[in-house]
Amino acid sequence: MDIKEFFKVNFEIEVPKYVQIANNLKNLIETKVIEDGEKLPPIRDYTEFLKVNKITVVNAYKKLQQEGFAYQKVGSGTYAKKKEVVSTFMREYSNTFKRLSTGNLEEAIDFAGETTGELLFPIKDFKDIINKVLDRDGAEALVSQNPLGYENLRKTINKVFWGNDLDNEDILIVSGAQQGIDIASKAILNINDNVIVEKPTYGGALSVFRWRRANIFEVDMEEDGVNIESFEKVLKKNKISCFYTMSYFQNPTGISYSLEKKKKIMELAQKYDFYIIEDDYLSELIYDESVDYIPFKWLDKNDRVVYIKSFSKIFLPGIRIGYIVSPKIFKESIQNSKINTDIATSSLMQRALEMYIAEGKWKENISSLSIEYRKRYKLMTRLIDSELKDSVSYNKPGGGLSFYLTLRDEHITSKLLFQRLVKKGVYITPGALFFRNIKDGNKTFRIGFSQTDKDKISKGLKIIREELELCRI
Amino acid sequence: MDIKEFFKVNFEIEVPKYVQIANNLKNLIETKVIEDGEKLPPIRDYTEFLKVNKITVVNAYKKLQQEGFAYQKVGSGTYAKKKEVVSTFMREYSNTFKRLSTGNLEEAIDFAGETTGELLFPIKDFKDIINKVLDRDGAEALVSQNPLGYENLRKTINKVFWGNDLDNEDILIVSGAQQGIDIASKAILNINDNVIVEKPTYGGALSVFRWRRANIFEVDMEEDGVNIESFEKVLKKNKISCFYTMSYFQNPTGISYSLEKKKKIMELAQKYDFYIIEDDYLSELIYDESVDYIPFKWLDKNDRVVYIKSFSKIFLPGIRIGYIVSPKIFKESIQNSKINTDIATSSLMQRALEMYIAEGKWKENISSLSIEYRKRYKLMTRLIDSELKDSVSYNKPGGGLSFYLTLRDEHITSKLLFQRLVKKGVYITPGALFFRNIKDGNKTFRIGFSQTDKDKISKGLKIIREELELCRI
Repeated sequence: MDIKEFFKVNFEIEVPKYVQIANNLKNLIETKVIEDGEKLPPIRDYTEFLKVNKITVVNAYKKLQQEGFAYQKVGSGTYAKKKEVVSTFMREYSNTFKRLSTGNLEEAIDFAGETTGELLFPIKDFKDIINKVLDRDGAEALVSQNPLGYENLRKTINKVFWGNDLDNEDILIVSGAQQGIDIASKAILNINDNVIVEKPTYGGALSVFRWRRANIFEVDMEEDGVNIESFEKVLKKNKISCFYTMSYFQNPTGISYSLEKKKKIMELAQKYDFYIIEDDYLSELIYDESVDYIPFKWLDKNDRVVYIKSFSKIFLPGIRIGYIVSPKIFKESIQNSKINTDIATSSLMQRALEMYIAEGKWKENISSLSIEYRKRYKLMTRLIDSELKDSVSYNKPGGGLSFYLTLRDEHITSKLLFQRLVKKGVYITPGALFFRNIKDGNKTFRIGFSQTDKDKISKGLKIIREELELCRI
Repeated sequence: MDIKEFFKVNFEIEVPKYVQIANNLKNLIETKVIEDGEKLPPIRDYTEFLKVNKITVVNAYKKLQQEGFAYQKVGSGTYAKKKEVVSTFMREYSNTFKRLSTGNLEEAIDFAGETTGELLFPIKDFKDIINKVLDRDGAEALVSQNPLGYENLRKTINKVFWGNDLDNEDILIVSGAQQGIDIASKAILNINDNVIVEKPTYGGALSVFRWRRANIFEVDMEEDGVNIESFEKVLKKNKISCFYTMSYFQNPTGISYSLEKKKKIMELAQKYDFYIIEDDYLSELIYDESVDYIPFKWLDKNDRVVYIKSFSKIFLPGIRIGYIVSPKIFKESIQNSKINTDIATSSLMQRALEMYIAEGKWKENISSLSIEYRKRYKLMTRLIDSELKDSVSYNKPGGGLSFYLTLRDEHITSKLLFQRLVKKGVYITPGALFFRNIKDGNKTFRIGFSQTDKDKISKGLKIIREELELCRI
């Protein structure tokens, strides 16, 4: 069937023509006949094709824009914007991990996991802490709800992590970084607002921005952060609302920003009037001593950074706690956004975390995690260099929990590799998850070591090498 | 200054006129010169006033719609739709409660609280349960994350509350009803979709729909549910996406639906193709034995009900757990919406709740809560009848945790009463919170008894009577 057939509309009498045209296009976008980001037919051509007035097509395109199914690029035309629909591959990927997380797959080698495994979790300490909290606070620990979060936790965060430089009231407790991104987006972004993200970037953030019906601009990552030239080009052409960034061990590339680049971006934020959402998800784990810790937030003289920190990622995935430090201008809307999202975060878990940090156990735990993870990191680099040197290229992140590898062979895709490895019980994260268009991720994949001990790392990398060799034949 | 001055635009050269007009109106809407729901000037009048082409104003209004600052009523014109901005009174209200929840106000008489107080909380049982879970599951209890929720909790919910009538996979664990509403809205509603709510309704739901930029239609409550005639009128004129309802002890009216009305609404849902979001937040507390428990979900032959249940409301506010039962059609998008919102709900709390329910302690606790609350309910009815009879009218809900009172005196507003009572240490919920336009709530207020014991109830109602008498003078 000629593709043009799809664009035809058999007009009914009762419904305005522009509505029928819009509905048809909406269907084509939802069923992926028109791809996300694809240009819609030029108005003139489409007008002639449908034999309608120009204003009819104009109105149809406006309706699509209004409903968030299209966006306009000035001087270029109208482009399709898909609703968050899960592609076939993404569904396969997500089902694989539903099986992995629910099944009893002790033998699995999970390079895809991003959180700390059970073995490194200080369960005894934490149990003691919970009991101490319940003895101290009684029912209060489970009954009280403060939308800003448990006051003492905010105080302790300010004291321990910020040297009391913040106003306690500027700290909002959330249920992890994902909720932080969701809440910040609700407060900052309107429909059709423009967002810049790093290319590639965290898939969970892409999803949030898609749900908000924002227009997403990707800017390529270099070895010390986004390419500033491309970044400024986007700023010049579009009114940007915010830039989502991970300053340390960026997910998935593992790249950390240079101080120079952070300063430059802070300047641009002021000049072009946009805000920075800084997702500081993993900066505790620095193995390379030449890396200094200076987040965007420390450089934030003009109150332009929404700082999001998760405690779940490396330490306590199951407790779901993180926090946001918000610029004054968004403070109230971010607080309201939290209330509208889920009222408050589990009170007992906040109290337990507070005691855990205040008693110094958090820092102890991070130190011992660092020692263990640094060992795995070294083993990984050694083995990637020896086993996979011919098949992949990569940068050493100097910290964090994963490596981002680029396939050298142009005939192999990471999607194929993923599918083959699943059959061998080895799980990797294909690049597809980190791009606006999943095709951009064909040549890359991420392997992490938080769920894999020494033995599994050796075994898993050997299997990856074998599969890559088999692919090539 | 003449109000017309506000609508003037001093056009600059560089920016298209329609953009400038739209931006000016946006400011007026945000700063409340134009109220939420107020009609914008008719296009013809505004065209003449500004001395521009008609198409310029048309485009300005379209831009406002597209950005969610206005909506069109067919055959009537364009109306302002405000961004979720907190009104002065709402801010005063919310600050009052921030003080109440953070301050040490033991003397306060809190008729506004909606959750169980500390005294009724079975802290010892719960502490034992948490320790049992930690001993049984170890680190797993804090490390594992399943976006659908802890599998055994879903099984236990299905068994205990649904007689295994559901598919376990259809149950999604969320962090309370508020998150349930937020997640369901994200999955079901697009911008500018139409939603019907009860008038009055839960303010937290109104907020979510506003954030989603939905158009909200209110339908008046009668003694056995919404007025069906008005309900169908809205359905005939507008494509409705969903109806948000509380079938038992509706918040704030305390009304429960008749079986007949529930059946009628189920029919209408099928006929007019909309979905029902049923927020079953309090049906455990039935004191009037003539009330049968039959939620919409039980009548749901055509898979049209999104059922939301909170465990936080009456039992464990601090643990933040609830669940959603979703129609098949939305199952995947609701699951994705949960992942995008906060990945998963606290794992330890889910395990503790599971054991608490499985061991029969949940039912025990509800029984003893029922006995205590029934006592307070009876005391409240007796005292309202004797103390406030001349000042207010009300219906007896026959269950739940609060009463919804209507002021008889036309010169008194509940906002004024609220402000006077705060000075006396008595907290009520003014009607303003439950309406799309806060002015609609001037004559009503809600008083609840979950945070007030016998003594405080007597003392508090006496103070309310005194203040009402003083108002009248």
